[in-house]
Amino acid sequence: MNYLNNIDVRTVKVLEQSEFPSKSQPKNKLIENAEELIRGLGLKDNAVVSFHHHLRNGDKVLNTIMKEIQRTGVKGLTLVASSLFPVHAEIIPLLQDGTIENIVTSYISGDLAKAISYGELKGNIIMQTHGGRARSILNGEIEIDVAFIASPSADKYGNISGVNGPNSCGTLGYVIADSIKAKTVVSVTDCLVDYPNYPADITEDYVDYVLLIDSIGRKEGIVSGTTKVTKDPIGLKIAKDTLKVMEATGLLKDGLSYQSGAGGISLAVTAFLRDYMIENNIKGSFASGGITGYLTNMLEEGLFSSLFDVQCFDLEAIESLKRNPNHIRMSASQYGNSEVSAVVDNLDIVILGATEIDTNFNVNVTTGADGVLMGGSGGHADTAAGSKVSIIVSKLFSSRIPLIKDRVDVITTPGTTVDVLVTERGICVNPLRTDLIEAFKKAKLDIIDIKDLKAYSESIMGKPEPIEKTDRIIGLSQYRDGRIIDYIYQVKK
Amino acid sequence: MNYLNNIDVRTVKVLEQSEFPSKSQPKNKLIENAEELIRGLGLKDNAVVSFHHHLRNGDKVLNTIMKEIQRTGVKGLTLVASSLFPVHAEIIPLLQDGTIENIVTSYISGDLAKAISYGELKGNIIMQTHGGRARSILNGEIEIDVAFIASPSADKYGNISGVNGPNSCGTLGYVIADSIKAKTVVSVTDCLVDYPNYPADITEDYVDYVLLIDSIGRKEGIVSGTTKVTKDPIGLKIAKDTLKVMEATGLLKDGLSYQSGAGGISLAVTAFLRDYMIENNIKGSFASGGITGYLTNMLEEGLFSSLFDVQCFDLEAIESLKRNPNHIRMSASQYGNSEVSAVVDNLDIVILGATEIDTNFNVNVTTGADGVLMGGSGGHADTAAGSKVSIIVSKLFSSRIPLIKDRVDVITTPGTTVDVLVTERGICVNPLRTDLIEAFKKAKLDIIDIKDLKAYSESIMGKPEPIEKTDRIIGLSQYRDGRIIDYIYQVKK
Repeated sequence: MNYLNNIDVRTVKVLEQSEFPSKSQPKNKLIENAEELIRGLGLKDNAVVSFHHHLRNGDKVLNTIMKEIQRTGVKGLTLVASSLFPVHAEIIPLLQDGTIENIVTSYISGDLAKAISYGELKGNIIMQTHGGRARSILNGEIEIDVAFIASPSADKYGNISGVNGPNSCGTLGYVIADSIKAKTVVSVTDCLVDYPNYPADITEDYVDYVLLIDSIGRKEGIVSGTTKVTKDPIGLKIAKDTLKVMEATGLLKDGLSYQSGAGGISLAVTAFLRDYMIENNIKGSFASGGITGYLTNMLEEGLFSSLFDVQCFDLEAIESLKRNPNHIRMSASQYGNSEVSAVVDNLDIVILGATEIDTNFNVNVTTGADGVLMGGSGGHADTAAGSKVSIIVSKLFSSRIPLIKDRVDVITTPGTTVDVLVTERGICVNPLRTDLIEAFKKAKLDIIDIKDLKAYSESIMGKPEPIEKTDRIIGLSQYRDGRIIDYIYQVKK
Repeated sequence: MNYLNNIDVRTVKVLEQSEFPSKSQPKNKLIENAEELIRGLGLKDNAVVSFHHHLRNGDKVLNTIMKEIQRTGVKGLTLVASSLFPVHAEIIPLLQDGTIENIVTSYISGDLAKAISYGELKGNIIMQTHGGRARSILNGEIEIDVAFIASPSADKYGNISGVNGPNSCGTLGYVIADSIKAKTVVSVTDCLVDYPNYPADITEDYVDYVLLIDSIGRKEGIVSGTTKVTKDPIGLKIAKDTLKVMEATGLLKDGLSYQSGAGGISLAVTAFLRDYMIENNIKGSFASGGITGYLTNMLEEGLFSSLFDVQCFDLEAIESLKRNPNHIRMSASQYGNSEVSAVVDNLDIVILGATEIDTNFNVNVTTGADGVLMGGSGGHADTAAGSKVSIIVSKLFSSRIPLIKDRVDVITTPGTTVDVLVTERGICVNPLRTDLIEAFKKAKLDIIDIKDLKAYSESIMGKPEPIEKTDRIIGLSQYRDGRIIDYIYQVKK
């Protein structure tokens, strides 16, 4: 639209001196009572509310706010949470009474996940990727009415910093899209600081209200589960073999870009990679994703020039982000939005886990062996698609349950984007990657056909029993570009 | 909109294995030929194109691109440039041949400004404020088809950094709104660097094309005109009196927030303020706006805790931005957008210049004594409105032309937001500010009624001749909130 085509300068209304504006006043955004805020927002039935998960299993904001919303009697909400953790089991009653009707998320675990798998959500659950979430918010596919931003610190005009405050969680990469697009943006903080709060992950111009509450959570809850190198000898063997695989790709050279998940084997791969880079005097370009202390150490050792951080996985990462100018904040869109160019598109290698993988290399990290929700893509499908080589590292069995199946329960990441599987019993290469098969043969790596590895696995443990499901579809696995790649079914109790 | 209300999970299209997406590829954004880029964009008549001015009078990008567009024969463009400098006189022929029909800007000087005042623009010129520009872009009032971003450095995926590259200009605060909202965003650079370019002012997810050209400009052109402390004794007297005025406001204490323009007297005020703060052991909070070496020194001396920088006015500021983590980038919206809370709303004191002021305290910095365009608000009206106390510093005469008039030629900043005028012949306080009048009396400052000061001025130089204008309106002075506060008329040659 050409603005000037719509006005006639000769007849436009020009203010008289008596109509001139007075001096502006800072907007009063601070509210110290959650009930007052929620009532004031006037949420209507079927509204869409969003949350981020940088406090992970230490988050108290989602529970506090959702229970306050429940008290208003509003029904049919869609909850758009970047991830949901065991701590969020507190909102199960809100599924049962219809306060929450639909959930859109990228990861879900704990009793809330179980409740949904057993059919307690009236509507549906959409499992997105981290990049897909940003895409769907920024392109208007999902319209958020109110974004509630757990804020480790904020000033009363809404400058939010993730590195200041007792519950600092580091980067706020997952909530940037929400802050840009939500109709109303609320900073929820337990640490009100003097203006101006900086460095701000989200600046005051994006924020409508600042809600001061007693506690946004427990920082210790950020470190949940699997953020330490495995000590299991089988896991370590897989990690060592993975290093050989990486070497054989020819990508372990100056300029390497790298990402790994925070699982124990993935972190072991990172630890071996570090030794290899030091030994071979390799200077990498960047590492990305959720950042751990393993990567911040490698940054400080000069093994990577920079880190692109969408989420701090541990307290070392938070400290590094605060201190090191080469440790860079990254939004989820910059990380993995398929509608723009993103950091994942320039990744050389990504190391990922799997709960199940099938003979088409499709990976499931969304549901467990019992078909119950216990995870989700996060950046899994984003990085698998963007990287030059995506490598799945996993043991062949987990609690006697085989990894490889004819067809995974729920497809999280399409096999067309998964390149290599490394297990303790062999390395499988996706037949689509003839280039890698060639390279691995040259490097004298033993490659086994995934069907043969499955047969071996079944010869030991037998074929797994099929999961008992109802015929009710409770949700969808959404690919990063918005297309649907699988159904999610209700599980029989 | 509730996304899930629009899909039926039972009938939604789910991809078959054969339809699964392949691995994504980095988008090819790099174009090394301006003609190819411009032809490829397929600009239509009446399109809207935007530019930023951080390279100020050293910018070559606007001329290069606009002349390339001219060659395509497209007509009736609206040029949305954050500011226009003498160097942009090269595009005068594009006004004459109708390539450019309308201009929206916040500052314009040089022969291009003259040409417009003499009627050579077929359409109109809208003079905005810096905050108003961001407001109008972000709220959709102005829809930009293509934003061309002069980029001191970029990688081939469009990570743009203002601090890297031979023509580094520092922060890119004025073009953030364009990068968010323009339908197409083009990074124009003469310094292509390895991926990932950081720290990025604008990240790859906002950028569609990267155009590599020989030269984006001359860095030396950033320092144009008035960025040194005045040596004129009258100017220094005004600056000294201004310090007394500031002291009398009671705002010169710990936590002070401060902004000044880059005029010689304004900078002298900053220099005196520095001495005062050291003497009285005052620790300020922040300084904002266009940043000069005077302010970066004060940051390093601990006199301010942080700087909020929308534009680097000199090379010291650029170096400081690169080095000092308390020197913070600020977008124009964060700076002065009236539809959000902005940094100007928390300013204690702003020091501003004036070409003319009238007895209603209305200020003109848009046109000169001859009625010809030679400036514009920039952040003038934004900071006047937001600050607790706005102080105009000016000599009573400039080249024998009086400062104070019955009615300024063009109202840039409404007098309702202008609090104090300091001249070499007296201090005037806006009658609306009874609080300041009271405080200044207590401080034994001599205050003179602005009408009396005008009478004095006229007793010396006489009343200025009225400017000879045609009755053709060629443009509008737009207040920061989008309302129009004055007409701009064509001037007789």
